Amino acid sequence: MTNVEQAVQYAHDHQKDFMQEYQELLRIPSVSTLPEHKPDMRRAAEWIAERFRRLDFDPVEIMPTGGHPIVYGERLNAGPGAPTVLLYGHYDVQPVDPIEEWDSPPFEPEVRGENLYARGASDMKGQLIAVLKALESIAKTSELALNFKAMIEGEEEVGSANLEAFIAGHKDLLRCDLSLNADTSILAADTPALTYALRGLAYFEIRLHGPEGDLHSGTYGGIVDNPATALCRVIAGMHDAEGRVTLPGFYDNVRPISPAERAELAKLPQTDAWWAGKANVAFLRAGEPGYTATERATARPTLDVNGLLSGFTGVGSKTVLPARAMGKVSMRLVPDQVPVDVARSLSEYLEATLPKTIRWEVEELSHSYPAMLSLDSDAARAAGEALEEVWGVAPLFKREGGSVPIVGLIKEMIGVPTLMVGFGLPDDNLHAPNEKQHLPTHFRGIETFIRLLAKLGAGK
Amino acid sequence: MTNVEQAVQYAHDHQKDFMQEYQELLRIPSVSTLPEHKPDMRRAAEWIAERFRRLDFDPVEIMPTGGHPIVYGERLNAGPGAPTVLLYGHYDVQPVDPIEEWDSPPFEPEVRGENLYARGASDMKGQLIAVLKALESIAKTSELALNFKAMIEGEEEVGSANLEAFIAGHKDLLRCDLSLNADTSILAADTPALTYALRGLAYFEIRLHGPEGDLHSGTYGGIVDNPATALCRVIAGMHDAEGRVTLPGFYDNVRPISPAERAELAKLPQTDAWWAGKANVAFLRAGEPGYTATERATARPTLDVNGLLSGFTGVGSKTVLPARAMGKVSMRLVPDQVPVDVARSLSEYLEATLPKTIRWEVEELSHSYPAMLSLDSDAARAAGEALEEVWGVAPLFKREGGSVPIVGLIKEMIGVPTLMVGFGLPDDNLHAPNEKQHLPTHFRGIETFIRLLAKLGAGK
Repeated sequence: MTNVEQAVQYAHDHQKDFMQEYQELLRIPSVSTLPEHKPDMRRAAEWIAERFRRLDFDPVEIMPTGGHPIVYGERLNAGPGAPTVLLYGHYDVQPVDPIEEWDSPPFEPEVRGENLYARGASDMKGQLIAVLKALESIAKTSELALNFKAMIEGEEEVGSANLEAFIAGHKDLLRCDLSLNADTSILAADTPALTYALRGLAYFEIRLHGPEGDLHSGTYGGIVDNPATALCRVIAGMHDAEGRVTLPGFYDNVRPISPAERAELAKLPQTDAWWAGKANVAFLRAGEPGYTATERATARPTLDVNGLLSGFTGVGSKTVLPARAMGKVSMRLVPDQVPVDVARSLSEYLEATLPKTIRWEVEELSHSYPAMLSLDSDAARAAGEALEEVWGVAPLFKREGGSVPIVGLIKEMIGVPTLMVGFGLPDDNLHAPNEKQHLPTHFRGIETFIRLLAKLGAGK
Repeated sequence: MTNVEQAVQYAHDHQKDFMQEYQELLRIPSVSTLPEHKPDMRRAAEWIAERFRRLDFDPVEIMPTGGHPIVYGERLNAGPGAPTVLLYGHYDVQPVDPIEEWDSPPFEPEVRGENLYARGASDMKGQLIAVLKALESIAKTSELALNFKAMIEGEEEVGSANLEAFIAGHKDLLRCDLSLNADTSILAADTPALTYALRGLAYFEIRLHGPEGDLHSGTYGGIVDNPATALCRVIAGMHDAEGRVTLPGFYDNVRPISPAERAELAKLPQTDAWWAGKANVAFLRAGEPGYTATERATARPTLDVNGLLSGFTGVGSKTVLPARAMGKVSMRLVPDQVPVDVARSLSEYLEATLPKTIRWEVEELSHSYPAMLSLDSDAARAAGEALEEVWGVAPLFKREGGSVPIVGLIKEMIGVPTLMVGFGLPDDNLHAPNEKQHLPTHFRGIETFIRLLAKLGAGK
């Protein structure tokens, strides 16, 4: 029996013990947003830290932040020649409201059928347990062939406000070759999938100023420029007739989708009708010519208006020529676009487009870097093989249209890609009543992590 | 001494009596918006009715509406061959807040210098008194050579909600050859002016619907049409690059500004710099080529955005692809544009422009007809002569960019133009603390009305 098979056997033999610990963690109501749960947050952090200690991580520290602490631990026994993986995770969970819609108490885990019900069962205590138990299975039967670091935060469900500063302050500590993010899911219990790319984000608020105060549109309509009209004009001008973004240089650094990738993306069960059904719309929009809906939604950059506000918006009519107009506009970015370039391009566009009658300012409200793990990389290959070995079918490779800020941060600040492997399912009721984890998928997940970590170690 | 000079002499001799009655009316706190003043509203209506009775109007009635009553009176002694003038006015006033900023109690009229201070002194009890006293001066000295009707409402300061229904229900009663509206002002104490045209209004709310609910802009950006972007596109498309409105047929019924009118408008002290100063902006907008700022602001139709609302408008960023977007858009109309044509044109434009991914609806929130008294009309000539005889200088003839709904209503429902002659001044503090009427202007106003009514009668 190989080392890997021994570890898999260990995991199989200890399922009952694993479930005990899984449920122990779920019983800690670590709701980060509610002040009354602060002691529970501490307990959860300590519980996690203790698990790393039992796996010979040294040091393991509960490190303070401006909010809830971050658990950091490392196990560098594989030596400087071996690759180092940084696990990202979070030990906090969402609130449980509306509590009356739960069929069993959210912090008293209950198995019904093939599922384990509890707040955090899927997001993401179940995924943390899966990684911890994979590490344990390897450690108890052979030796971990790679160096492992773990950074488990307590504020993911409240926006990770202190994470960026933490990473910035501990770049050396967190140095690694690859990041592993288990806070994710597969497409269905019988459909393994690997998300290998995320879009980034550049989010702006554009504020246009016309007259000093609101004016009467009867008196001044026709001679005083209207910032609401001006806002509509600049926003309308951000796309051409076919849906391409017109900001200067917007596509300059966009990495083309390779033929191999297009072939992979084409395997996804995501037709136009599938997307329309998921969005609950009758028709998809006309988009960039030459790209499928999946490519446009995940692998091409886009620009959307997220908010508009100007003038009188109450019931009825008020004949105001508004003093101000505000638009929130955000772009989804793909490799190798950089948020700061987009910000510069937007400013250039506004400067070139707006008349002298309109004063403007633009503020970047948030950004995150696009991230992509090359399909040709060892890590992507290892994950693909591990999934196929456990599920018996090749995984689908997909990109996500949204951003996972931590993945962008790690790319931007530590300079490494992230491998996103986790075993939630789309129907796990994340952030909702009756959150659950599908247990057969969970145990396949533990086996997958065992095989994946072995492959990553072997690739040194 | 001619009849007119006798009437003018009478007015001169009775200034003290006139002031007594003026102040008596001002002491009635007829604030239409405050329920506790309902008895005062009744008192004011009765006071006005009694004055018409004393002038041999018969009948004089206080007619109920859904809100405050309307005083109607008529004096048709001049016979069927004589012209009939319908006076419009209102006996209600604005509230007095902030009361602490008044230098004397708002309902205890006080003369300081050349001004009489009280709520309603200018808007418009002073103007009502001026017409009443002109009628009295004529009646006491000779005979009124025209038929006179009066419709004095009690809800002008709260939007005249019941006036349209009242006019619709009494079209025969209100039939006339000319309407006289004294609820207006001149440019300065030494600058008589006559407003001979007002713009109309067509005010719409456009509501665009995209997906059923707000979507995540990361997941659906690029494939689901964004109603906020669509709204910006349709609004941007409503003007061409030079500022002309592009709605189909928008200019079809626009009456050109005649050379004579242009010459009159050019006499106004309204340069581009004057308009910019009045609006407190550094630059006027580029507008329709070939028209002065005064022409664009008052004699040409325009389109303005009055409000925009979509998606997330709070502080910070929310990556929402909004389900809905709302825009309030209004057009200022000039003769002979008709609101219903503009509504049809807007719908045609939206239908032709919006993609099938966007469901739309448009609601007309309000409209008023443009109105114009031809400069060639007997009424305009009579008013111009009367003003010149009293002031010693020819009046300026001007158009207003705004709308006075009652003027539009009378044009639309009774089919007659309105002569707007009143003697407020721009610094009268209408709707504000320390409202006042300039008394020398008030007495010149009485004389002007005497001469004007005589000329209108003579023109039969």
